[in-house]
Amino acid sequence: MRATVSVPGKVSLFGEHAVVYGEPALVAAIGKRLTVSVEGRSDKLIKIAAMDLQVPGVVLTFNEESPELIVETDYGKIVGAVGYVRKAIEIVSGRLGKKGGVNVTIRSEMPVGAGLGTSAAVAVGTVAAYSLLMGEELSLSEIAHLAHQTEKAVQGLASPMDTSVATFGGILYIKPSAEPVVEKLSIARDLPMVIGYSEREFRTSDLVKKVRALREAYPDIVSSTLKSIGMISQRAKDALVSGDVESLGRLMNINHGLLDSLGVSSKSLNDMVYSARFAGAIGSKMTGAGGGGCMMALCPGREVEVSTAIRIVGGMPFRAAVSEQGLKVESIDR
Amino acid sequence: MRATVSVPGKVSLFGEHAVVYGEPALVAAIGKRLTVSVEGRSDKLIKIAAMDLQVPGVVLTFNEESPELIVETDYGKIVGAVGYVRKAIEIVSGRLGKKGGVNVTIRSEMPVGAGLGTSAAVAVGTVAAYSLLMGEELSLSEIAHLAHQTEKAVQGLASPMDTSVATFGGILYIKPSAEPVVEKLSIARDLPMVIGYSEREFRTSDLVKKVRALREAYPDIVSSTLKSIGMISQRAKDALVSGDVESLGRLMNINHGLLDSLGVSSKSLNDMVYSARFAGAIGSKMTGAGGGGCMMALCPGREVEVSTAIRIVGGMPFRAAVSEQGLKVESIDR
Repeated sequence: MRATVSVPGKVSLFGEHAVVYGEPALVAAIGKRLTVSVEGRSDKLIKIAAMDLQVPGVVLTFNEESPELIVETDYGKIVGAVGYVRKAIEIVSGRLGKKGGVNVTIRSEMPVGAGLGTSAAVAVGTVAAYSLLMGEELSLSEIAHLAHQTEKAVQGLASPMDTSVATFGGILYIKPSAEPVVEKLSIARDLPMVIGYSEREFRTSDLVKKVRALREAYPDIVSSTLKSIGMISQRAKDALVSGDVESLGRLMNINHGLLDSLGVSSKSLNDMVYSARFAGAIGSKMTGAGGGGCMMALCPGREVEVSTAIRIVGGMPFRAAVSEQGLKVESIDR
Repeated sequence: MRATVSVPGKVSLFGEHAVVYGEPALVAAIGKRLTVSVEGRSDKLIKIAAMDLQVPGVVLTFNEESPELIVETDYGKIVGAVGYVRKAIEIVSGRLGKKGGVNVTIRSEMPVGAGLGTSAAVAVGTVAAYSLLMGEELSLSEIAHLAHQTEKAVQGLASPMDTSVATFGGILYIKPSAEPVVEKLSIARDLPMVIGYSEREFRTSDLVKKVRALREAYPDIVSSTLKSIGMISQRAKDALVSGDVESLGRLMNINHGLLDSLGVSSKSLNDMVYSARFAGAIGSKMTGAGGGGCMMALCPGREVEVSTAIRIVGGMPFRAAVSEQGLKVESIDR
């Protein structure tokens, strides 16, 4: 028996880093997907094959009873995904009170580890496909919850944002607090975007630490910047709902500069951001934790020009509109 | 008879644009100078020869009695300097109650119209040299005042900052208000800098308007950014006095991002700013109104590397430490 699901990647539209300090943020599912396929085995082994379209595949096998990993090749960042698969299977097995050996195959249309939420997508996809294989249809909320538990278990700390948007799709507005507000937005029009990718030089945790250190050194300046980013998310929410694309673009430009002032942008990100504007983007900004990784450009009708501009400065462009489609069951073969 | 004076250029260290909205700023005289030489003529003509080291010279003649300009060549931005020379002569003549024909020769070690305060330097230099030629030794305060009157008359509006720093040298801290605070700082140590120049694409007045429009569209976000820039000037003042070069560098980086968020940076400025950091600068930022023009990098011991990096991305680098030397009388030949 085999169950296959697909899960969207995400971009952080507004509010990255500031969300860590309680400011609102906006995250959107994109039309690039990650597919998780789970097939039953007669033994208790768990075998994971991860095929990132960007890097050669990697195949890993481990025995549920022992902590040993049998790594057949360790090439590519996708190796990191293995931890999420293993933990998701463990958590779902615990929830369902049953478990079995499986072959897990992961395919990604996006670069992995680039801030596009691939780890959350792996967690959501594994929870969904593995529970289907075990004969249980969990609710979307429960899938999102178990996937968030998975991320927390692997990373120590995780926002529920990435797993939520991967599960439900669309655009989520989140305002963190003791009782966080999460609101799914109905947006007035399509948002055709080009995403530019460059190699990441720093880890998310290091960038979060960098902002924290800057905030400690210059508390009033940096706190004010983080608050401004929160105000941008607020204004952007209104602009999304009313379909004011021009304003969204301007807010992206402002937000990029503020992130730059926090020290989380990079030469490669700035090159792509400014090239995109030069090529006619209404707005562009880095997206995610920064230190390399992805930027996005809002550029209706100028996708070709903006893609070319990003490629010229050494980035890898791909088109990815905001997508309403969240988790999708692709097939169940019995 | 001939009087020759030299006047330093300036960089805006911190606070550009925000100073328009009442926030404090820091401006420094640099070790690149503009020389104004004034020679008496037997007739009433005023002949101006402007030799920018960056562009071919331009020679202009005009008759004090008529508004006509005889332009022998119109190449280069230095033509703009002519208005300042003419107005300065008019204002000093009015103040002294006497006038005469002169040959004025201007030489600049800096690019003109790049935000390095060359128009203020021309005004200060002309006021000083022309009054000396007329046999009057004005006080520095009076020279600064008449030069500021000159800038106001030519531009309609002018901050007294540029003419003050050109006259007195060093670093000035200014807090605008009904009774502006202007304070000359004693700095703890040398500040070796590399300045990078690229062609300007926009005029100062257009950039000031652009910030105003952004502030009207997003008042809370932009006001908060302007206030943050003011806080940076405040912190930078302390860092200058105590000689905390590391903090100055970090504050430059923060300030650059905030200026970027105001939409006044450019691809060429960002290229130079990030290349300089890559080459080992402690901090770097655009300086002045932006839209192209100059950036500066604080890079003690790394001047060669940073200069090379700026040249690689198409900028013109030159070294220019902060200088205590203001207006200087070079020679008076009778």
